[in-house]
Amino acid sequence: MKIHPLWEDYPSLKTELERTLDLMETSINLANKEVENAILEMIHSGGKLLRPAYLFLFSQFGKKKDTQKTIALAASIETLHTATLIHDDIVDEAATRRSLQTIQHKFGKDVAVYAGDYLFIVCFKLLAHHVSSLKSIQLNANSMEKILDGELGQMDDRYDYNISVESYIKNISGKTAELFSLSCFLGAFENNAAADLSSQAKDIGLNIGIAFQILDDILDYSQNETTIGKPVLKDVRQGIYSLPLICAMTSHRQELMPYLDKKIKMSDEDTQKIYDIVKQADGITKARILAEEYTQKALEQLSKLPETKENTRETLIKLTTQLLNRQA
Amino acid sequence: MKIHPLWEDYPSLKTELERTLDLMETSINLANKEVENAILEMIHSGGKLLRPAYLFLFSQFGKKKDTQKTIALAASIETLHTATLIHDDIVDEAATRRSLQTIQHKFGKDVAVYAGDYLFIVCFKLLAHHVSSLKSIQLNANSMEKILDGELGQMDDRYDYNISVESYIKNISGKTAELFSLSCFLGAFENNAAADLSSQAKDIGLNIGIAFQILDDILDYSQNETTIGKPVLKDVRQGIYSLPLICAMTSHRQELMPYLDKKIKMSDEDTQKIYDIVKQADGITKARILAEEYTQKALEQLSKLPETKENTRETLIKLTTQLLNRQA
Repeated sequence: MKIHPLWEDYPSLKTELERTLDLMETSINLANKEVENAILEMIHSGGKLLRPAYLFLFSQFGKKKDTQKTIALAASIETLHTATLIHDDIVDEAATRRSLQTIQHKFGKDVAVYAGDYLFIVCFKLLAHHVSSLKSIQLNANSMEKILDGELGQMDDRYDYNISVESYIKNISGKTAELFSLSCFLGAFENNAAADLSSQAKDIGLNIGIAFQILDDILDYSQNETTIGKPVLKDVRQGIYSLPLICAMTSHRQELMPYLDKKIKMSDEDTQKIYDIVKQADGITKARILAEEYTQKALEQLSKLPETKENTRETLIKLTTQLLNRQA
Repeated sequence: MKIHPLWEDYPSLKTELERTLDLMETSINLANKEVENAILEMIHSGGKLLRPAYLFLFSQFGKKKDTQKTIALAASIETLHTATLIHDDIVDEAATRRSLQTIQHKFGKDVAVYAGDYLFIVCFKLLAHHVSSLKSIQLNANSMEKILDGELGQMDDRYDYNISVESYIKNISGKTAELFSLSCFLGAFENNAAADLSSQAKDIGLNIGIAFQILDDILDYSQNETTIGKPVLKDVRQGIYSLPLICAMTSHRQELMPYLDKKIKMSDEDTQKIYDIVKQADGITKARILAEEYTQKALEQLSKLPETKENTRETLIKLTTQLLNRQA
């Protein structure tokens, strides 16, 4: 069992995350052992488990803690996240993820479709068997709906040169931030935290999630430069225009337009050009400023949280600062 | 709103099925209106709505009926079925279904992946908001797990010349019969039918579902002959060996083997040859005998059901006889 090295600094979280992986593992049972093993391998490939981690941290604000239920909720959310990753890999035709062959690459898209579907079901099953109220099943279902609405919203905005920063934020709020928000909220709510704390947790999770996704989109530009030597710009190739490009469009629209025609398959030279223009137009810098705004908002909200015996507030600030300043 | 003409003979069922479609429609809300419309179009394209129909019929054995809940359960099950159809169309690269363009063909597999995922969530949402107990959410989750296990089991058995009749029945029990079984069971159970009646309903649904899928697999062979003039054999082309072929293998293994090599893409001549051999080996006739066994078992079980004021038993026998003797 491999846990991401990030958690070495957080020993009690590390234990809870390991128990989460254990529960996920025992919940996955397929007659098709090859596919079962591929799913288990993916689960143990060292993903960051950020959503479960935030869920555990916010559970510490609870007045009546239920560790077993909290682990089940964490497992359910990470299982949902894994399902969407498997399906994302079909859409992206990705060959590898976390240095492993993707399920779609190893077994074909047919198996990947059903393997992702199966994990959606495992997510339901974990909720259905470990949660004590229909209310929390409803909250989960509503959040999941927002996540898919965000994914499909992003699909709708592909190849749209005129996508606004607002539409971009709306899409990433759904496809990424909603699950962070749900994790923070459920951690607090399901452990009987005060109502206003659960509501704060939801807001904080949303801001963390938005900053996290903007940073991810920045890394799609900046990281390639340093680590691969040339820009990959996976999103742009699929017509998904993320924040650095959207920011660059305001001043360098004329220069960018010729490369953004959906009828033409993008060459490596095209993406190099796009990258150069985005950089020249300070698109990455401007995106960083917006990420920083959401980060600061989250940190400010975190600093107002009450004391706990586990010193949760400081742990949350440390983790969030670390996460939203990462370089890879 | 188009309801399959089959239901003209069953006016009260027709009304309930229309209400089911209404609820499905109001439960589907996406920012991406193009995809929303494609999903709604698919829902209103005249599918048979068999699973909801059986659910309504078995609800009539309930001692304390809850029509609103029953409609929600029916909508949830048909939504799940629609989700799997959208994903099946990705796997099959199907261009049309029920004379409409498939979502994968119209919008690409990316949209189809997320559209199917979205419907899984809607199914879950319907259950979460309309069902009164965690118990029935658990039953649904467990059944859904069997369905996906069946789909993945079938994937695992692709291109396996040695697949047994037992493995075939196991796979179709999961991928098809389980949802019939769940529908019959939930109809009874969720309306407070006697425990032994709910348990019978489950068995009956399983037998109907198995017979239904065998008949579908027979029609993949026999129907093509009469309606298209040449065999399409969609399943065989994908390495899925269904009952007519499995039955033919016992006597005509040598003749069939050369055409079943997965490394070779099957030509129309190959499928014509396979079809000829399967027919010559009485594969279709033998498959019909097994379908008939499951049909008879179901009809016998149905005939033992108690009287209801709606004359449910006779309706169930009429519908099941009609369904399992269909020619298309």
